[in-house]
Amino acid sequence: MTTSTQPEPLVAPPGLAGVIVADTEIGDVRGTESFFHYRQYDATQLARDVSFEEVWHLLVRGHLPDAAELDDWRSTIARNAVLPSDLAANLVEVMRRSASDDPLVSLRTAVSALGALRGDRPLWDLEDQEKELAAIRTAAVVPWLVTAARQVRLGEQVRDPRPELGVVGSYLWMLTGEEPRPEHLRALGRYLCLTIDHGFNASTFTARVVASTGADLSACVVAGIGALSGPLHGGAPSRALDALDEIGTVENAQPWARAQLAAGQRVMGFGHAVYRGLDPRSELLRETATELGGATAELAVEVEREVVRVLDEAKPDRPLRANVEYYAGVVMQSCGVPRDMFTPTFAVSRTVGWTAHILEQSRGRKIIRPSSRYVGPPPSQPVPTVEERQSGASPV
Amino acid sequence: MTTSTQPEPLVAPPGLAGVIVADTEIGDVRGTESFFHYRQYDATQLARDVSFEEVWHLLVRGHLPDAAELDDWRSTIARNAVLPSDLAANLVEVMRRSASDDPLVSLRTAVSALGALRGDRPLWDLEDQEKELAAIRTAAVVPWLVTAARQVRLGEQVRDPRPELGVVGSYLWMLTGEEPRPEHLRALGRYLCLTIDHGFNASTFTARVVASTGADLSACVVAGIGALSGPLHGGAPSRALDALDEIGTVENAQPWARAQLAAGQRVMGFGHAVYRGLDPRSELLRETATELGGATAELAVEVEREVVRVLDEAKPDRPLRANVEYYAGVVMQSCGVPRDMFTPTFAVSRTVGWTAHILEQSRGRKIIRPSSRYVGPPPSQPVPTVEERQSGASPV
Repeated sequence: MTTSTQPEPLVAPPGLAGVIVADTEIGDVRGTESFFHYRQYDATQLARDVSFEEVWHLLVRGHLPDAAELDDWRSTIARNAVLPSDLAANLVEVMRRSASDDPLVSLRTAVSALGALRGDRPLWDLEDQEKELAAIRTAAVVPWLVTAARQVRLGEQVRDPRPELGVVGSYLWMLTGEEPRPEHLRALGRYLCLTIDHGFNASTFTARVVASTGADLSACVVAGIGALSGPLHGGAPSRALDALDEIGTVENAQPWARAQLAAGQRVMGFGHAVYRGLDPRSELLRETATELGGATAELAVEVEREVVRVLDEAKPDRPLRANVEYYAGVVMQSCGVPRDMFTPTFAVSRTVGWTAHILEQSRGRKIIRPSSRYVGPPPSQPVPTVEERQSGASPV
Repeated sequence: MTTSTQPEPLVAPPGLAGVIVADTEIGDVRGTESFFHYRQYDATQLARDVSFEEVWHLLVRGHLPDAAELDDWRSTIARNAVLPSDLAANLVEVMRRSASDDPLVSLRTAVSALGALRGDRPLWDLEDQEKELAAIRTAAVVPWLVTAARQVRLGEQVRDPRPELGVVGSYLWMLTGEEPRPEHLRALGRYLCLTIDHGFNASTFTARVVASTGADLSACVVAGIGALSGPLHGGAPSRALDALDEIGTVENAQPWARAQLAAGQRVMGFGHAVYRGLDPRSELLRETATELGGATAELAVEVEREVVRVLDEAKPDRPLRANVEYYAGVVMQSCGVPRDMFTPTFAVSRTVGWTAHILEQSRGRKIIRPSSRYVGPPPSQPVPTVEERQSGASPV
């Protein structure tokens, strides 16, 4: 046995808050500047100016596609958005046999089953191009998986994708059964671009930890979906909209916010763990909601103003502003996305971000394996016999 | 916007190696002492002296059960080892529709589907007792899930559990269709006890990250299974046995080991990331394999001696010894576990460990959300139009 001099272990703060666990070239969130970016571009500018497919290319390949690359890229996504009919039939049967009220639980099972049906291989056994293809194939089919799971659950007919409409258009078509309108394509495209990636949040980190073991791509995505389904993470974009319904009129906004604070409740849709001031996603989504128009958007803007007043009074040291959840619900509702599909819609875009991180993580070949500190009683005792044990008591 | 003074971020070493990310009362691994423990007891002593069910109780409830508690505990496990027949039928159909050659992929899908069918709720919505029941229910059914998935894949009849035989006995029965022999119960029970838990390995950590989001128990276990399926983590207990087959006779051991080293290959079954000398699990499993007897066990002991000689010569500064994989395969084979079921058998015990960690993690209500360091080009550029972009080139 060797006696090595161990370095003093590094004790991370709870939840690894603020601890840099990896280098990344994918993007960053600057909480104090209300700014986030994908690669070398402002993410909100990307959301305004380019399509979801282009941002997807940027995340996965590291640069925005030129005209020829974009053509190829769209074809690749389109080809992979449609599953062979026997595979689709098996997945529909899996969805039917394991239906859940929670759409993320259905997505988790479906992605896992899809990986099995495709014979996913460990990332470590794949060349770079094979890995990338695995990433595209999985992310391309998520829009169908989440809509099909809903249709199966509701006993409706499962709609096939129409990849010629693009990712956003095909998704809206599958969701609503109607020809997507240009303003909805634009608005939902913005939402999806804005939510592709956002630092080392719990689901992205989870996907990277699994990727670091060399597991197959579906294993990583399935783990990410699990983390996203946690109430502390994925949240519920519908909560903010539910709150808006409850408030009903602008006159009720201040009393409602005061009541929330008095009850020690978080005010849904306001404040963010990383952004200290404005949430840049919320800024663009407010503009988008306003462009779409309608009574809910109008009410949302007025209620925001009133709630911010109450919050500024109550917490002058820490400005709480509308977060991505607040206007996301308004935008999605205006585009015809049913409320139960808000979180799955988030998963549609975030899967793209996860896959970019999974690819980046799997280029390094280092497993993520932290340490822990044992804080229980010292392990110095002989094992007591059943007779010697005391019910419910620790022998220490 | 606030201008807060940010503390200097902590930069963790690659893979979070040696970084303490949490306190735990579940157990610890002392790599330099060739020692690991569950709660306050030497894990190898537990494996020798008490049953799998008792160690399970220790991990989940924090103490060894007295006689009455043990009776209750065994009944609870037994009750939950058998699924209602409609639920079992749905799962069998899910397995049939998503069959995979990789048994961990099948387990991943099955646990996810089971969570859906049971209507798993987020851990954060559950009382302590409900959480514990969710943990027991899931771990109790893994032996059936892994054997049923195999039988479905091979087109064999799915065997029902026989919970009156205990966890180990029922598992052996489902696996082999034969009445389990006492020496096999004892040997496999030891293996299972020895592999329940082992520090913050990648799968345990993954399960804890997902648990920190408040997600449901299945989401955490499914994520852990994904990490375990990675070649760098779960490894393949069958690899060491495959190597033993390849070696064939003790005379071939040294030449084989030299050839592996010359080819720059790892010598399968030797060396461990945490243990600097002997792997205590391997020590007890060698003894167990020898007790079971047989030509493979005999060969394994002789080959180990020869391989260690070669390794000591080649790497005098770092003693490489047989790890848990080396004798695990020998023991499992002697007990009648088919080679393709070695990793799933590991999952049977490790699921218990994961659930103990998930329960512990979910008592703290802090999400695990680390940071990253952006190392790409600065995000200061306007988004180029398609015409301005250069194929494959980064504009920086």
